[in-house]
Amino acid sequence: MYVSVSRLRIEPDLAPQLLEAFRSRAHLVDTADGFIDLQVWQAERDLGEIWMVSRWRDRDCFRSYMRSDSHAVSHARIPPLLKEAIKLERLDHMSGYEVVAE
Amino acid sequence: MYVSVSRLRIEPDLAPQLLEAFRSRAHLVDTADGFIDLQVWQAERDLGEIWMVSRWRDRDCFRSYMRSDSHAVSHARIPPLLKEAIKLERLDHMSGYEVVAE
Repeated sequence: MYVSVSRLRIEPDLAPQLLEAFRSRAHLVDTADGFIDLQVWQAERDLGEIWMVSRWRDRDCFRSYMRSDSHAVSHARIPPLLKEAIKLERLDHMSGYEVVAE
Repeated sequence: MYVSVSRLRIEPDLAPQLLEAFRSRAHLVDTADGFIDLQVWQAERDLGEIWMVSRWRDRDCFRSYMRSDSHAVSHARIPPLLKEAIKLERLDHMSGYEVVAE
């Protein structure tokens, strides 16, 4: 199993709007080959620290989705004001992990 | 749902031993009230970066487990050499998250 983690940072005041955008997402990823699930995590100590965590059968499935029209369409739906407000925590804000034990 | 993330750092050469220790874990946590699942993630870009990710019904369940004998026994089983080899990524290496969207 492969996990992709995107760490986003936003002004805590804007966090509710970002979460609302996630909750009304298009769900296009749900039918992607190898997609398992997607969760959005909010840090208990910093409400402006928000992680998108998606799990995949393997890395190739994730990479195929990232190159797909579905991914482009999903990202195009993010309200421009929110897009501007999201400051990436670091340049390599997206990290990949292999699940190595359960 | 509540998620606890522990970020561990170890010399990459020792990572296989740490993963072996995880794989032979006592599984005492599995029956803790509110426990959902536990995964161990290894970063694809840095094999010495290993995360323990456990999911719980809520924060209180996690806190109760952390105070339990089961937790103490589980930690006591980690081989001392490995314990010494694990350098905590930062002092507050353990972070909690609320699952706010799926």
